[in-house]
Amino acid sequence: MKRILVIHGPNLNLLGKREVDIYGKVTIDEINRDLKKMAKAKRAALTIIQSDHEGEIVGAIGKAKGRYDAILINPAAYTHTSVAIRDAISAAGIPVVEVHLSNIYAREDFRRTSLIAPVAKGQVSGFGKASYLLGLEAAITLIKK
Amino acid sequence: MKRILVIHGPNLNLLGKREVDIYGKVTIDEINRDLKKMAKAKRAALTIIQSDHEGEIVGAIGKAKGRYDAILINPAAYTHTSVAIRDAISAAGIPVVEVHLSNIYAREDFRRTSLIAPVAKGQVSGFGKASYLLGLEAAITLIKK
Amino acid sequence: MKRILVIHGPNLNLLGKREVDIYGKVTIDEINRDLKKMAKAKRAALTIIQSDHEGEIVGAIGKAKGRYDAILINPAAYTHTSVAIRDAISAAGIPVVEVHLSNIYAREDFRRTSLIAPVAKGQVSGFGKASYLLGLEAAITLIKK
Amino acid sequence: MKRILVIHGPNLNLLGKREVDIYGKVTIDEINRDLKKMAKAKRAALTIIQSDHEGEIVGAIGKAKGRYDAILINPAAYTHTSVAIRDAISAAGIPVVEVHLSNIYAREDFRRTSLIAPVAKGQVSGFGKASYLLGLEAAITLIKK
Amino acid sequence: MKRILVIHGPNLNLLGKREVDIYGKVTIDEINRDLKKMAKAKRAALTIIQSDHEGEIVGAIGKAKGRYDAILINPAAYTHTSVAIRDAISAAGIPVVEVHLSNIYAREDFRRTSLIAPVAKGQVSGFGKASYLLGLEAAITLIKK
Amino acid sequence: MKRILVIHGPNLNLLGKREVDIYGKVTIDEINRDLKKMAKAKRAALTIIQSDHEGEIVGAIGKAKGRYDAILINPAAYTHTSVAIRDAISAAGIPVVEVHLSNIYAREDFRRTSLIAPVAKGQVSGFGKASYLLGLEAAITLIKK
Amino acid sequence: MKRILVIHGPNLNLLGKREVDIYGKVTIDEINRDLKKMAKAKRAALTIIQSDHEGEIVGAIGKAKGRYDAILINPAAYTHTSVAIRDAISAAGIPVVEVHLSNIYAREDFRRTSLIAPVAKGQVSGFGKASYLLGLEAAITLIKK
Amino acid sequence: MKRILVIHGPNLNLLGKREVDIYGKVTIDEINRDLKKMAKAKRAALTIIQSDHEGEIVGAIGKAKGRYDAILINPAAYTHTSVAIRDAISAAGIPVVEVHLSNIYAREDFRRTSLIAPVAKGQVSGFGKASYLLGLEAAITLIKK
Amino acid sequence: MKRILVIHGPNLNLLGKREVDIYGKVTIDEINRDLKKMAKAKRAALTIIQSDHEGEIVGAIGKAKGRYDAILINPAAYTHTSVAIRDAISAAGIPVVEVHLSNIYAREDFRRTSLIAPVAKGQVSGFGKASYLLGLEAAITLIKK
Amino acid sequence: MKRILVIHGPNLNLLGKREVDIYGKVTIDEINRDLKKMAKAKRAALTIIQSDHEGEIVGAIGKAKGRYDAILINPAAYTHTSVAIRDAISAAGIPVVEVHLSNIYAREDFRRTSLIAPVAKGQVSGFGKASYLLGLEAAITLIKK
Amino acid sequence: MKRILVIHGPNLNLLGKREVDIYGKVTIDEINRDLKKMAKAKRAALTIIQSDHEGEIVGAIGKAKGRYDAILINPAAYTHTSVAIRDAISAAGIPVVEVHLSNIYAREDFRRTSLIAPVAKGQVSGFGKASYLLGLEAAITLIKK
Amino acid sequence: MKRILVIHGPNLNLLGKREVDIYGKVTIDEINRDLKKMAKAKRAALTIIQSDHEGEIVGAIGKAKGRYDAILINPAAYTHTSVAIRDAISAAGIPVVEVHLSNIYAREDFRRTSLIAPVAKGQVSGFGKASYLLGLEAAITLIKK
Repeated sequence: MKRILVIHGPNLNLLGKREVDIYGKVTIDEINRDLKKMAKAKRAALTIIQSDHEGEIVGAIGKAKGRYDAILINPAAYTHTSVAIRDAISAAGIPVVEVHLSNIYAREDFRRTSLIAPVAKGQVSGFGKASYLLGLEAAITLIKK
Repeated sequence: MKRILVIHGPNLNLLGKREVDIYGKVTIDEINRDLKKMAKAKRAALTIIQSDHEGEIVGAIGKAKGRYDAILINPAAYTHTSVAIRDAISAAGIPVVEVHLSNIYAREDFRRTSLIAPVAKGQVSGFGKASYLLGLEAAITLIKK
Repeated sequence: MKRILVIHGPNLNLLGKREVDIYGKVTIDEINRDLKKMAKAKRAALTIIQSDHEGEIVGAIGKAKGRYDAILINPAAYTHTSVAIRDAISAAGIPVVEVHLSNIYAREDFRRTSLIAPVAKGQVSGFGKASYLLGLEAAITLIKK
Repeated sequence: MKRILVIHGPNLNLLGKREVDIYGKVTIDEINRDLKKMAKAKRAALTIIQSDHEGEIVGAIGKAKGRYDAILINPAAYTHTSVAIRDAISAAGIPVVEVHLSNIYAREDFRRTSLIAPVAKGQVSGFGKASYLLGLEAAITLIKK
Repeated sequence: MKRILVIHGPNLNLLGKREVDIYGKVTIDEINRDLKKMAKAKRAALTIIQSDHEGEIVGAIGKAKGRYDAILINPAAYTHTSVAIRDAISAAGIPVVEVHLSNIYAREDFRRTSLIAPVAKGQVSGFGKASYLLGLEAAITLIKK
Repeated sequence: MKRILVIHGPNLNLLGKREVDIYGKVTIDEINRDLKKMAKAKRAALTIIQSDHEGEIVGAIGKAKGRYDAILINPAAYTHTSVAIRDAISAAGIPVVEVHLSNIYAREDFRRTSLIAPVAKGQVSGFGKASYLLGLEAAITLIKK
Repeated sequence: MKRILVIHGPNLNLLGKREVDIYGKVTIDEINRDLKKMAKAKRAALTIIQSDHEGEIVGAIGKAKGRYDAILINPAAYTHTSVAIRDAISAAGIPVVEVHLSNIYAREDFRRTSLIAPVAKGQVSGFGKASYLLGLEAAITLIKK
Repeated sequence: MKRILVIHGPNLNLLGKREVDIYGKVTIDEINRDLKKMAKAKRAALTIIQSDHEGEIVGAIGKAKGRYDAILINPAAYTHTSVAIRDAISAAGIPVVEVHLSNIYAREDFRRTSLIAPVAKGQVSGFGKASYLLGLEAAITLIKK
Repeated sequence: MKRILVIHGPNLNLLGKREVDIYGKVTIDEINRDLKKMAKAKRAALTIIQSDHEGEIVGAIGKAKGRYDAILINPAAYTHTSVAIRDAISAAGIPVVEVHLSNIYAREDFRRTSLIAPVAKGQVSGFGKASYLLGLEAAITLIKK
Repeated sequence: MKRILVIHGPNLNLLGKREVDIYGKVTIDEINRDLKKMAKAKRAALTIIQSDHEGEIVGAIGKAKGRYDAILINPAAYTHTSVAIRDAISAAGIPVVEVHLSNIYAREDFRRTSLIAPVAKGQVSGFGKASYLLGLEAAITLIKK
Repeated sequence: MKRILVIHGPNLNLLGKREVDIYGKVTIDEINRDLKKMAKAKRAALTIIQSDHEGEIVGAIGKAKGRYDAILINPAAYTHTSVAIRDAISAAGIPVVEVHLSNIYAREDFRRTSLIAPVAKGQVSGFGKASYLLGLEAAITLIKK
Repeated sequence: MKRILVIHGPNLNLLGKREVDIYGKVTIDEINRDLKKMAKAKRAALTIIQSDHEGEIVGAIGKAKGRYDAILINPAAYTHTSVAIRDAISAAGIPVVEVHLSNIYAREDFRRTSLIAPVAKGQVSGFGKASYLLGLEAAITLIKK
């Protein structure tokens, strides 16, 4: 059974409660429930964390090797500012898939630069909750290779 | 039955035959075969074209509405240079999903700017052949909404 | 009787059918009808083409000299990306008037740079269908000089 | 009868007397005479001012609403430097048409940025005296809408 | 009794009459009335001017020393373009407080650069009429120091 | 009674002890004491926190809605680097006022860009301790609206 | 006998007929005749095409491998805008030599960036017709290696 | 006898009274007195004006031809912002010499760009009062040519 | 005996275990052991911390004065993104030495800008473990001054 | 008999001894030998110098007129930094051909800007030793014109 | 008697022989003769050197203190590229006056940035030979202060 | 016994005599004496040169291989402008250590870019004379590897 670490970045705990015009009405709990359902169907085990702390996310990625086979991450705001998370992913030693709920390329200029993308395996963005589900599928595909 | 137009941009006919270190060994025929298999399973009908001509791609998108329910496109080199394809997508009136075989954010600087991304619904990149399959899934999901 | 070549660039065949909030409800047929009416009144003969292909537009301009006395062009998306059309206009040997339906200076940043403007005689933008009519008038004025 | 305010920006009083290689031999009096002739034909009344003062132009635009139905302006040098005139136009509450004698896009780099264009209805440039006449026609068309 | 010069920059005479969605419905007269009320309460005397002319504002600041103890200025459009007003403030020899009705950092790019801010004592922006009142309070506090 | 959350960003605990030439001799305790005095006078209740952790500040803002009526924040160094705090403020659902002790526009280039300003209601900067007091007043005014 | 594909880009069919002050009086036919003469002397066979269509050039390069031993290309305007031709050359699998009639580095700014140069073997520019002849010689030398 | 127009730009009336660390203690009256002394010695007649108004300076330059043989100007703050003065100088038809009291290249970044320099005959900067005297000498030399 | 605080930034706990091609095989424990050996020889006492949290590092520097005589820091990823750590160092009141294992100037563009360097006393980079030892020596030299 | 000055710029004496992966194994002596052989065949006389000194190269070009009919130069590192050599070439009065062993457009960013190219007649780059031979041929062709 | 070192930078030995349209027909000998004549009249002694070598100019400036009272320098091409000459001037300890024959601000973009100007006392440019004479006068004035 | 070449760049002969506020009072002779003392202690032999000439430094590095085991260089002003020295170091074939007396990152913008750093093994900056000593130690460590 494959083990996958799911990381929700800063502010994602507020999903569905704020700014529903941008991010939609779906909550983090619904996303997590759907992710687990798919994981179960595909015989993968998920560990899910949410953190507003760059350092905690760095630490979680640093300790992932050996415990997980892949990482699924929505770095949220840290996508655009965190070299530390980038370095952690570079050094992760397991495949990392980056997902975004909204189409970051259709928003403010500073959101169009992802420090994470160049070191992730691939990226899925713009499909709302489906971004996570497609990302999980991608992660499982990458593990199999 | 949902109808989806799949567009392969310039040079993609050479897939698997050239630069296999960047794009892998998979050929366009294999991608098309797998896309059709998935479409069949999900009860969707695919029309697939490949073109090196910006104008042909513009024309195909312009005529898509009413004939197709969604478009799956790998704009390849035109991702970075074609305002005409961008405008066609803006005016398409049906959802468009952008896919890339390679992680365009891990390559040359000029490949990190997508003129297409801001007007597509979403983007999948970096997973090789799987980018197309995940993209098709995304397109079908979008149609259902 | 003066002969004028009218060139509609990519996607303009969709006018009035898509994105009516930006481009208005007027169709390319209405524009052409009004252009012909004015041409008739001013004793000019029009040849009108629409093309999504950069190469076709380049070719048409290249062959214009001797056949036409002036060119009226709405380069649409190619305004911002086509050095080839710019070069064709530079070499045209007859006056070229550039028109735009919308005010390109009030839109996205990348639309504010026109590769065509520096080599056209002049430019009319922002007046919808009237941009074409004023442009035709300008072209006729330029021929008379 | 429609009332239109015509504003000539800084240095335009020198037209036809200086730098005739760039701006031509036409004088401001000839332009005004031709504008009036056309206005008469189209049953519009013109008020014409020329000013070297940014503040005067701002003031004139600020007071235009209720007195005029449209403004025709050649902001000359202030095209590239005046946020104050831009703000006045934004707040004008009547349509404003921007005209230029020369093709500003074929000149020095700093002349290619118009602070005015994004807030004007449209722009006519590069046709010498005819720019004004076409601009007046555009203004009259805009009033009718 | 402290004397304070209040300067309203270009177009501010139009406040409350135009573009109420950006600047609100408050008029310059209401702002002046409220400023005077507060000044009275705090035992300060106000002189208030409004000008569309950069040169007049420069002149007023140049003559302020000895006549006033502080300046409260909303430079409006000149915020972004006037080195002359900046130089006048640098040389003013009395404290200058900059205020803005709207949040200039939430608007167009060119409004995010203030030539004035680096030479003013401080800045208050985004609170509508309250920006002026807070600014007056700040000016009075600065005089007391 | 209105409840307001006051957030002091990184390094502000050192106020008055270090770099007194830039930030002055006032300590965070004196600022807090004066803020509380004013709050009492204006019948508002303050909760005050100081944190060096971006994540903690994000979390505090995320939980503020329902508990507080407004936020007064001096984001200090995070002003220029934190998209996460910006996103938290965007999603806060209650008015946020940004304050700075020093005039950030008179300092190093990188301090002139505030990621926070575009999403805050308004900003007060450059008046030392008085920036906080004016900011609190602004916050109370905003709540009343 | 070595086979070489010669590609003339957009507008080059007009050579010698237009803008003779920049490109000289030599026609494309004279260049082709001289190229063939040299090829004959060096026992190489040439296939020569001219196209205004980016897509046709992409297609021709894509099919070159196995049919030709080298490509000699003057991409003309596409030098500065075509990522598609660049990608085709990257994937060509045979040496490609880039030539320009004029010294592109002594012209407009936008002509100083060649998207093609980084993927071509080498470049010859500025020598008029001789650029082609030196380029052919270079191509033959490269094949021999 | 040669006639020369001397123009002092904005804020220069404050010379020697404010910011003596940058501009020195010399007043505009002393400069004018010394200029007149030198003019007398060199048999030239001076007309001297100071203005804070961009428009007035534009007007004065526009009317100079025929009345003066040369212009000596310290555009002060307008050096960096006034395209209108630049255009006036371009069209002046008599030689214009630009002077600066301080070394503008050793000050803030925005002071290093002179819009005036490219259209003036030459420039003298950094020598305090002597800049004016050397500039006057240069102007007289230019007239003699 | 001199007391020195050694700070290892984010991800440095992974040293020698990941990306050995960039950072080498040396572990953080070996570096610490060698630093302590040298400290002992030079009669200095070291306190060593490693943290992935920007806020913790800010806090540690803020509390250093009075407890330590100097700081030796490898800010790792925060070198390029943390204004907060920069501000903490500015305010530290004791000398700070910046070290890097790899030559940051020979890597990605974004790593060539150090926000820390302008406020550190000096920097040692590129010598692997030896960077730390040379940095410690530098710190001890600075204390002695 | 035509006389040509060949100039090898800095570090080219090390050719074939260092960095053979970039510049190949060919030495400067082999290049010179082949150049002389070709010169002899084409009845031209070569003078060849190599210098690491910008000033020497400037001097040699300055004295070339009257002694040589053309210059063949590989400016090496000075290509990207020397305005002095550029000025010397501008003033040379005889045709100058620029050559490069490697494809400078396929290397670091700063190597893609040639200060020399805009003033040379033409450029040959990327063909190793053959760049020199083709360049010599170009130079001889230019002399004949 | 005051001693002044006059330095002519690279290529200036060619003055009057090449590019007379830009630099005029005056030769370096005529300039030197006129400089000496003026020096004699003003009781100053000149030492004049010309060098194409950046290093020689650096050395000459470095040794000037104690031997000369001021330096008059036309750094020519090194104006735009030499930090070494800038550093030498910074450290010169005697006043340095920068002169240019042509108006460098009316030429190519790269000539508009002077690395020298920020560290020179002042600058005279655009007056041909008179630039030197005015510069010498400025230097003598500076010594007297 | 290891042999190390020490290179002092332009103006360093003036150390301790000029600009002591930036570079300190230490002279080049003192630095050399201390370097030799340390070299003796560590059984290394030093050859020390100082040059204002870029070309001499290039030449010295070019000839170093075989004669020296490492190079210690303070490129001074050439740090920011010399591609030639960079190329020489790239080709040196022995380790090169870059040192700076001052913290170049705390000075003018143009000093923050080192062309040398990307090709040196490592860099030590900001510690005054100690930068050299630490650099020598680093060089000796590198040789031992």
